Amino acid sequence: MTELPERAIWYFEDYVPGRTAECGSFSLSEAEIIAFAKEYDPQPFHTDPVAAADGPFGGLIASGWHTTSAMMRLLVEHFISPQSSLGAAGVDEIRWPKPVRPGDTLEVRATVLEARRSNSKPDRGIVRSLAAVTNQHGETVMRVTAINLVRLRDPDA
Amino acid sequence: MTELPERAIWYFEDYVPGRTAECGSFSLSEAEIIAFAKEYDPQPFHTDPVAAADGPFGGLIASGWHTTSAMMRLLVEHFISPQSSLGAAGVDEIRWPKPVRPGDTLEVRATVLEARRSNSKPDRGIVRSLAAVTNQHGETVMRVTAINLVRLRDPDA
Repeated sequence: MTELPERAIWYFEDYVPGRTAECGSFSLSEAEIIAFAKEYDPQPFHTDPVAAADGPFGGLIASGWHTTSAMMRLLVEHFISPQSSLGAAGVDEIRWPKPVRPGDTLEVRATVLEARRSNSKPDRGIVRSLAAVTNQHGETVMRVTAINLVRLRDPDA
Repeated sequence: MTELPERAIWYFEDYVPGRTAECGSFSLSEAEIIAFAKEYDPQPFHTDPVAAADGPFGGLIASGWHTTSAMMRLLVEHFISPQSSLGAAGVDEIRWPKPVRPGDTLEVRATVLEARRSNSKPDRGIVRSLAAVTNQHGETVMRVTAINLVRLRDPDA
């Protein structure tokens, strides 16, 4: 069995505007969509395939929060480093321009938009990034602009 | 046993700017925080109480997406009606100004900010709302501005 190589640790200095990370892909099954929605977003077009077929989307679709959460996992694995991450201050915008349906193949890509050092805390900086989720038809199903706090590798440089 | 009264159905016409809905409260246990984060946001300050104690928040905190998803359930139960909801176009802003810790009591309140009819589709309108989550110390732990599409009760009025 081959060990996967350790992923490089990204610190603030590595989040250079324009830098992109391909974060892999995920898929949500009908059963997963229903289970998440029954717990967190119990609207009929997320929980009931029969009602959803007659609903506004002509079939079952994933909760936007399910898509967001599943995307987050890939960002944690490919774009955020546990050694440097100080959490997120928030999100500037989320859009869900197309619905996510069971079995869609959803690719995640993150791009650094802006990085600046904190004025008040010299050990960290603020990174704004755009994460985009694209389905197998090349349609963007989600865009999110996130604001993360990230430790510097070398605050004294 | 007394049946709870059926909740009134809100259509577009009911989302009057300034109108507020008290959506009740929720709480996330340490086990729930860890289970959600292991699946969707596996950063040590969400998944590992020991590492979290030495981490940036001095203890385990909930993933912002967990707080968001749990808040959503209360919005679905108290602010959104399945008869009129046509889903969300997106979110204009999320902020997590304070961390959520295991066992916090988190109250959810939604306020209508703006409501306008769709230019292209006469059967619906666009509602912008602010949802705020407040902990037992009166601190706001989350604010989100959401954009929902909502059916009119009477499009011909």
